[in-house]
Amino acid sequence: MGERESLDLLIRGGTLLTMSEDMEVIENPEIGIRGGEIRFVKHDRKEPSSHNAKETIDASGAIIMPGLINTHTHLPMVAFRGLADDLALMDWLQNHIFPVEAKFVNREMVYHSSLLSMAEMILSGTTTFCDGYFFEDGVAEAALDAGMRGVPCQGFVDFPTSDIPDPEKRGAVAEAFIKKWSNVSTLINPALFCHAPYTCSPETLSEIKGISRAANVPFLIHLAETRDEVSDIRDRYGKTPTRHLHSLGILDENTIAVHCVWLEDEEIQILAECGVKVSHNPESNMKLAAGIAPIPEMLKRGITVGIGTDGAASNNNLDLLTEMDTAAKLHKVSSMDPTVMDAKTVLKMATIEGAKVLGLDGRVGSIEAGKRADIIIIDTMKPHLTPMYNPYSHIVYSASGADVSVTIIDGKVIMMNRHLLNMNIDDIIKRIIKISEDISRTTAAGD
Amino acid sequence: MGERESLDLLIRGGTLLTMSEDMEVIENPEIGIRGGEIRFVKHDRKEPSSHNAKETIDASGAIIMPGLINTHTHLPMVAFRGLADDLALMDWLQNHIFPVEAKFVNREMVYHSSLLSMAEMILSGTTTFCDGYFFEDGVAEAALDAGMRGVPCQGFVDFPTSDIPDPEKRGAVAEAFIKKWSNVSTLINPALFCHAPYTCSPETLSEIKGISRAANVPFLIHLAETRDEVSDIRDRYGKTPTRHLHSLGILDENTIAVHCVWLEDEEIQILAECGVKVSHNPESNMKLAAGIAPIPEMLKRGITVGIGTDGAASNNNLDLLTEMDTAAKLHKVSSMDPTVMDAKTVLKMATIEGAKVLGLDGRVGSIEAGKRADIIIIDTMKPHLTPMYNPYSHIVYSASGADVSVTIIDGKVIMMNRHLLNMNIDDIIKRIIKISEDISRTTAAGD
Repeated sequence: MGERESLDLLIRGGTLLTMSEDMEVIENPEIGIRGGEIRFVKHDRKEPSSHNAKETIDASGAIIMPGLINTHTHLPMVAFRGLADDLALMDWLQNHIFPVEAKFVNREMVYHSSLLSMAEMILSGTTTFCDGYFFEDGVAEAALDAGMRGVPCQGFVDFPTSDIPDPEKRGAVAEAFIKKWSNVSTLINPALFCHAPYTCSPETLSEIKGISRAANVPFLIHLAETRDEVSDIRDRYGKTPTRHLHSLGILDENTIAVHCVWLEDEEIQILAECGVKVSHNPESNMKLAAGIAPIPEMLKRGITVGIGTDGAASNNNLDLLTEMDTAAKLHKVSSMDPTVMDAKTVLKMATIEGAKVLGLDGRVGSIEAGKRADIIIIDTMKPHLTPMYNPYSHIVYSASGADVSVTIIDGKVIMMNRHLLNMNIDDIIKRIIKISEDISRTTAAGD
Repeated sequence: MGERESLDLLIRGGTLLTMSEDMEVIENPEIGIRGGEIRFVKHDRKEPSSHNAKETIDASGAIIMPGLINTHTHLPMVAFRGLADDLALMDWLQNHIFPVEAKFVNREMVYHSSLLSMAEMILSGTTTFCDGYFFEDGVAEAALDAGMRGVPCQGFVDFPTSDIPDPEKRGAVAEAFIKKWSNVSTLINPALFCHAPYTCSPETLSEIKGISRAANVPFLIHLAETRDEVSDIRDRYGKTPTRHLHSLGILDENTIAVHCVWLEDEEIQILAECGVKVSHNPESNMKLAAGIAPIPEMLKRGITVGIGTDGAASNNNLDLLTEMDTAAKLHKVSSMDPTVMDAKTVLKMATIEGAKVLGLDGRVGSIEAGKRADIIIIDTMKPHLTPMYNPYSHIVYSASGADVSVTIIDGKVIMMNRHLLNMNIDDIIKRIIKISEDISRTTAAGD
């Protein structure tokens, strides 16, 4: 930490939103990075730096902030972006998505589609994702190759899938997945994902949650997404989905419940008391007409809520900047209170609160000495970001992912001036276009 | 129209969304432009062109479509972008916006702020705007200088403003404005704007509507934006705002009613029967928690509805691409029906239906021979626009304004590869930053 320490990267100038506990905003900061770690954050450095650094980034006229954290997505589904829109969730899922998944999802498709999604995320300022899908090994491998931080969650349902043809072997698959990815890289934090209470039996839920608990990794599940789910689970188990999971002992501080649209007031209290983390996916919930999650109520009860884009097939992009805008505005109009979900609150949800959801807040989510260097820079010298009275407002209400000019993950600059530095993006795009042509031929023939 | 006619501009390749009556989609089109007019649209031209053109644009791998039409905004308010957020409409308006307007709005500020807004619009694919504000001469002049098509609407309220210190002179101001701008340029179509039923007396409304009618130009008004407005107008006149305007004879096919959030079922019928056009501003309505306009019901009754961003102070950008996304998703979740406001319907609202709202559909809103050449090109060879099964879906659900690579207005290429060709944008940004610094000093001192 000495003044003479040689640095890998130095960022100077601009306006730093630290997103630290006291929401410190620092003008003309100097951020020193070495070995992937933020070594120091200094104030108001107008003189030339006294530090030696291999690389220096001048952020004058820009906003520096922590990389965004996408707490829920299905990265490989980018291959189905725009394949089926303007449909009800169950129609969309059962008549469009499940059939193409059964035919086209394989290890190679997962790897390449995930790379495309990661390119999109890196270009729009996301540095950490939490993904749930099949063949999640492929997602983890793509993250390593893309240099992204991720929580890949191997997915489970009761019916046979191409990655787990024999569902009885799920326990072995879960354990092997955690074991394989636990110590590969600081970037990868493996976890497990039961798709939903309506696709996983109580036995499956209990078994996978048990393995998560033993390994001390997050357990992810779609919960109370639609009214149909609530009535379906009531019919099957005589309880709402939330009470059903509670009765199985699934709900604890290492469970990430995604969507949580249809919660009774008492169920919000159950989630709060159990310390369950929530991933809010407003655009997907809107597009599929699932409903509006009671997020302001959850925040009032002290529930930790992060933001997610869901998969590109139900959004249809992975842009957390526009997702924040939608999140803020949706709850204002839904509650008829324009003061809820203010810009600061929403930006916290997409950074430090998202890190807490994933159990990574000791390492990322804010820009402070000792944390890993996951940092983005947003150039504000543009017509739609002029003038600037309030940087939080600009990030949430005015910017889009295309305004991110630099993305740094674990101390490495992986995107600079809209160029991906460690990917052959033309090659990735070509591969996915090829997959989409195959899908188009099949769906055209089948319909 | 002969094969040998020499052209100003030829666009070839890509996928053309004509937005014509039959929603024709043309692969590998050839679009010939001369004298600002679309001379021909040809199909599937893979051979080298037989046409001579001064300039040729290769749109391979891109979507070509009509420029977007923003049916309601307050362009000069871009100077207040992010000045006051997360507040209720009346608090925002009366305690933040009106005071800075009284102090900082002048002819020069309006001109320069409008230029900044136009830069933002051109960069995000908007080619036609309808604006309502004070000193609207400054907006019209900026449009001429920016090369944008516009419907500048001089604004009226009952209280003295810096552009009309004596409100009794409003009639003369209105007539002079229409006269001045009626035949200046094919780009400018002047109109009149009464701010709202709660800021304009019945006499003001009748007088300005009378002048609009005599001149056969649109009459614009904010209508039924908030519940407070409804109860206020009920208290004053014993009627809802819509019935109040109806009883004054204000509602006809040349009236553009903006917002229309709080309409009873019977009032939707009144608007439909009178042929009133509606401008839907979902993001502003959400951010100010005004409410959700019953747009799917209006469409069912055959009301012509366009989309608007409202001013940048209540949105906080002028990006119609993300506004379409929000419009589609908001009504799906609000009606709990994911099939409403499908991508095609919403894209129509932002193009040909918007043109109808402004009375300009004979000239713009679709790409057809004989129309003026207002055209945008969206490059789709990007991670977040890959793969592409359905171009309508991509435009509405996946793209943002930053994906527009070419903007053509009245046959002139005014933006190419994100560069504004006829503006010194750095100079404009500097001027607005200077204005914002003055505003910041005043508001900091005053609060």
